[in-house]
Amino acid sequence: MQRYFVPTENWRNDTVVIEGDDAHHMLRVMRMQVDDRIICNPPASKGAICKIVQMDTDSVTAKVVEWLDRDSELPVYVTIAQGLPKGDKMDLVLQKGTELGASAFIPFQADRSVVKWDAKKEEKKLTRYRKIIKEASEQSHRNHLPEIKPAMKLKQFIEESNTYHVRLFAYEEEAKTASFQSFASVVSKLNKGDRVMICIGPEGGFSTDEVDTLKEHNFIPVRLGPRILRTETAALYALASISYHLEELED
Amino acid sequence: MQRYFVPTENWRNDTVVIEGDDAHHMLRVMRMQVDDRIICNPPASKGAICKIVQMDTDSVTAKVVEWLDRDSELPVYVTIAQGLPKGDKMDLVLQKGTELGASAFIPFQADRSVVKWDAKKEEKKLTRYRKIIKEASEQSHRNHLPEIKPAMKLKQFIEESNTYHVRLFAYEEEAKTASFQSFASVVSKLNKGDRVMICIGPEGGFSTDEVDTLKEHNFIPVRLGPRILRTETAALYALASISYHLEELED
Repeated sequence: MQRYFVPTENWRNDTVVIEGDDAHHMLRVMRMQVDDRIICNPPASKGAICKIVQMDTDSVTAKVVEWLDRDSELPVYVTIAQGLPKGDKMDLVLQKGTELGASAFIPFQADRSVVKWDAKKEEKKLTRYRKIIKEASEQSHRNHLPEIKPAMKLKQFIEESNTYHVRLFAYEEEAKTASFQSFASVVSKLNKGDRVMICIGPEGGFSTDEVDTLKEHNFIPVRLGPRILRTETAALYALASISYHLEELED
Repeated sequence: MQRYFVPTENWRNDTVVIEGDDAHHMLRVMRMQVDDRIICNPPASKGAICKIVQMDTDSVTAKVVEWLDRDSELPVYVTIAQGLPKGDKMDLVLQKGTELGASAFIPFQADRSVVKWDAKKEEKKLTRYRKIIKEASEQSHRNHLPEIKPAMKLKQFIEESNTYHVRLFAYEEEAKTASFQSFASVVSKLNKGDRVMICIGPEGGFSTDEVDTLKEHNFIPVRLGPRILRTETAALYALASISYHLEELED
């Protein structure tokens, strides 16, 4: 069944009105009819099976048939701080990261990011990123829409990281030394509801300055397996492992 | 350091001759010089740090300085049988699957595959796939080059699966029933050297016939987390989880 995220203001008791792109998708792309069933999701709650009761030229009205009990959210809140990568790799991180359960994304302007975040194009870029996240959330049956933040410099997201219980950064160099904390030992100690920030370098990795600053602010360096992962693969490895450990191994 | 996979016939004692695309890459793209160091890898063995001793117009000769001890291979042999997906998603599965440690890939012509494998273009397609795999292997510092097989129908790869210790297929429907084996319980029981085949359906999932046939041949249905993953994300989740469990959690 198709799933749509619908803003809170479009819900009234058990009636929901779908507008904009989603209404267009239902009316013109899926060619839905009255009585067809869909899943509607308030922004941060479980979804409901709804029956279409009315179709207008640019909106669709549906009534809740049954609230769903299924919770498809990771038991921890994971934010991916992704060093701005080249080309369309950020799209891949957002799409796959959403499928794999991330709660938020922070594009991070790293010393070695080849791409520069253009403040003038920010709103346009964020709109596109939100669309990728919304579609991936609907497709993967998420209950919550992950958040995307505007690009930050290291200092800004280090401030942001104060509200997190666990701060990690992917840094294989460190992982070669004897006294490192393994990624698995950190994941094993997570509790339901913990906030975890995972910072991933861009293609060229972190600069020495960045490594020093991250360590000073209690970011733990971790290895994500013994192979060298591309920047866009690292977040996916981390998220899949957290899901595997908390949702499949311990569940 | 740049890594190159070099066929067995190009090695003689501690001397290796690099030809073709790789020589072009070294001479024209990287503009390497005599005395520069690279890592050379026989097809299925650990690599060696080598020093360039001679450069010709279309070949480079290097001498082994030191054999590397690092083993970056998953402790189990994982084959991904991927239902042929649309567009360039197979490229993503091959590239990311190689980074994450897969040993072999079988494109699988599923009932619901929209794309049809064109036997006439097979050699061309396999050549392109091998190039993706080789580049991902070099980049991720693999010791072995994963194998890519020509596309198979269900019956063919079920025959192929006889040499495997564990056979799995991603099937979330089954995972909703009470009596399923969890993915984690299967991964927990893996031993070093085990051969594991993981079968992933295309965009529309498996047909009922395929599910019945897979079950008859002792393929175990598993869930890969509670969210609905796109076909190309499923293999990556499975590989990351196996790496996490065997290389990070138990290592």
